[in-house]
Amino acid sequence: MTRDERAARAQDLDTAHAATDLRHLFDLPPGVVYLDGNSLGAPPRSVAPALHATLEHWRRDLVSSWNDHAWWEAPTRVGDRIARVVGAAPGQVVAGDSTTVVLFQVLRAAAALRPGRRLVVTDPASFPTDLYVLSGVARDVGWEVVHARPDEVPTLLAERGDDVAAVLLSHADFRTGELWDLAGVTAAAHAAGAVAVWDVSHTAGAVPLGLDAHDVDLAVGCGYKYLGGGPGAPAFTYVARRHQAAYEPAVRGWHGHARPFAMEPEHVLADGIARARTGTPSILALAALEAALDVFDHVDVAAVRARSLSLTGFLVECLDALVPEARLVTPREPERRGSHVSVALPRAIGVVQALVARGVVGDHREPGLVRLGVAAPYLTHGDMLAAVEQLRAVLDAGEDAAPENQVRRTVT
Amino acid sequence: MTRDERAARAQDLDTAHAATDLRHLFDLPPGVVYLDGNSLGAPPRSVAPALHATLEHWRRDLVSSWNDHAWWEAPTRVGDRIARVVGAAPGQVVAGDSTTVVLFQVLRAAAALRPGRRLVVTDPASFPTDLYVLSGVARDVGWEVVHARPDEVPTLLAERGDDVAAVLLSHADFRTGELWDLAGVTAAAHAAGAVAVWDVSHTAGAVPLGLDAHDVDLAVGCGYKYLGGGPGAPAFTYVARRHQAAYEPAVRGWHGHARPFAMEPEHVLADGIARARTGTPSILALAALEAALDVFDHVDVAAVRARSLSLTGFLVECLDALVPEARLVTPREPERRGSHVSVALPRAIGVVQALVARGVVGDHREPGLVRLGVAAPYLTHGDMLAAVEQLRAVLDAGEDAAPENQVRRTVT
Repeated sequence: MTRDERAARAQDLDTAHAATDLRHLFDLPPGVVYLDGNSLGAPPRSVAPALHATLEHWRRDLVSSWNDHAWWEAPTRVGDRIARVVGAAPGQVVAGDSTTVVLFQVLRAAAALRPGRRLVVTDPASFPTDLYVLSGVARDVGWEVVHARPDEVPTLLAERGDDVAAVLLSHADFRTGELWDLAGVTAAAHAAGAVAVWDVSHTAGAVPLGLDAHDVDLAVGCGYKYLGGGPGAPAFTYVARRHQAAYEPAVRGWHGHARPFAMEPEHVLADGIARARTGTPSILALAALEAALDVFDHVDVAAVRARSLSLTGFLVECLDALVPEARLVTPREPERRGSHVSVALPRAIGVVQALVARGVVGDHREPGLVRLGVAAPYLTHGDMLAAVEQLRAVLDAGEDAAPENQVRRTVT
Repeated sequence: MTRDERAARAQDLDTAHAATDLRHLFDLPPGVVYLDGNSLGAPPRSVAPALHATLEHWRRDLVSSWNDHAWWEAPTRVGDRIARVVGAAPGQVVAGDSTTVVLFQVLRAAAALRPGRRLVVTDPASFPTDLYVLSGVARDVGWEVVHARPDEVPTLLAERGDDVAAVLLSHADFRTGELWDLAGVTAAAHAAGAVAVWDVSHTAGAVPLGLDAHDVDLAVGCGYKYLGGGPGAPAFTYVARRHQAAYEPAVRGWHGHARPFAMEPEHVLADGIARARTGTPSILALAALEAALDVFDHVDVAAVRARSLSLTGFLVECLDALVPEARLVTPREPERRGSHVSVALPRAIGVVQALVARGVVGDHREPGLVRLGVAAPYLTHGDMLAAVEQLRAVLDAGEDAAPENQVRRTVT
């Protein structure tokens, strides 16, 4: 395929997917191909006006805003909007706190749901915070942590499942982008009598999750990746309705109390998902996240997924053709792919920095991976081709070996 | 004293305290006397531009902002600015998470500092979240909770202190405004070999704390009261330098790791106060809090305290003269008074609602208290007199008995 033919193919694909090109809803700098929306999503245009309005409420109505502008209900209101994105009926999702904190809470609650079982299963390739939090909870509740690749978990459960309290897995591997079998592992966990806890940080807003349909027990996810809520946006907690009456968070604040304004000395857990609230959440952060979710009023996640698969498929096609020395670590099968594509290259840090200098923003992950995130609503097939052409140019010019490109910290 | 004489006295006091009248730094609606800054501080004018700038960084520099705009360092940078306000040398305060969460963390860490001791002492009149969190931690670590009024704690420690691991107290009572003896109780705790943990939510930014000078061990505080960081602003954690090497938080995320970007499977606590970080904090919320702290570049806390004592003293004087039926529950002695004044009145809810309708915003706390918060930088002696005159008018007109004023939820 000639360069012109490939450009024409990108154009044709963009025309075919024009209905899901939502770049106009985002405020992106011109000339940048942003392939790090899986780390920090680009700002939806709806966010700035919403923050301005919240500041105005604070200024004008002061403390009365808790009532007058329904600040009190923000965690559950935003939660219900996230629920639609992750395939959950209302009343099962609450937003607030960081992913680290909410993961601690759901894991402690999972232990309380399965007292007497001694093991917890996780993927050793999980995002580090998941491993750190799990390790702390394991110490607290006396769990032994058993490591397994997600695709080996069903076998492990069939063999030793009687003693497994919970399985904690990420829906997509943060390094390779591999998508794991949420439905299958959840069913296997249930067959063993264990609780399935999913971290959907890398798929919420990018892949249809069907948390209700697949009978997931507990889940947490990130607000600042594909949900676009801004740097450090509140995370969310999903507690399936059937578990809510027995859901016992370890950290209990007054927002999760049955009668918060009675200021009673004893904590009485609220009914429903409100018991997963803790203390006073950042209303500014919640307002930004709430506004960001407006994007999903314009497109459903199935359509985002279709666009994402077309984009990542074309990205892989361009990489195969133009950068054959890049070893693809992301699965080629669409159904095994999340929404980012990672390739192994020597001097991956240098590659990423040289790409940034050329206006293509991805990131680097050890060991030696260039990670290209595809937040589908604001990217095109033309962007995929442009990114790969720039990667070719970086390697041809040896820019990845330039000393100034060797060390740089990145943040997921 | 006639009405004119009292107005002249207010005027004289305002003239005498003109140097600490910083209302021009705040964006308050005209015609409102805001006496709920101890619940939600009024917005400093510096906040909106700072949020706008942070949004612009996100829009223009996207994920690179973590490096280019020092987002990564925000929790410790903001922490160091708070440190100045609470009397701590740099490197001992970190901002992020809610008060509920950071209290859980410091209490778990306190237990790890004093293994083998079985008791924890607290005030049963503490803000409910403190009691709820402590109760959960006590279950986790096997503590028995012993209740005592703060002024009885030294005696209790002298008698049973050998078995006390920690004392958790609020520096000011959230209902009565009574200020407790931070230095004395801390010394008594140390004499017994216990750790002193203070919740300074109701005094940080209003009263000089001298956390270092008084050898406080651990403290937490709120960002949205006298620090003015906006609704649900991040809380802060103080860990005295001498305890940092042994500080072991229960919830461990990647931001508190010694090498966060190495993405290692095992958690290794960072040196210094950074180990008190958890997961990714809200950068928007931290930006607002950081900007709010600019107020303390214009005034030090000792001057704020002097103004506050003059204001609350005059408020009590006006209440005594004009509303003798209001029973003062706040101590009359200046050194025993925080920065709010509470009075007991029949139909306190109705009083508060009727006052709001007249432009005087305070709040209500059970049992039957009208709570008038005095955030000194943006209030005047004239405001104190106006508030009391409106209270007199409310009672004279019976507005507190009006049915529409009987039920209303307020938020601290």
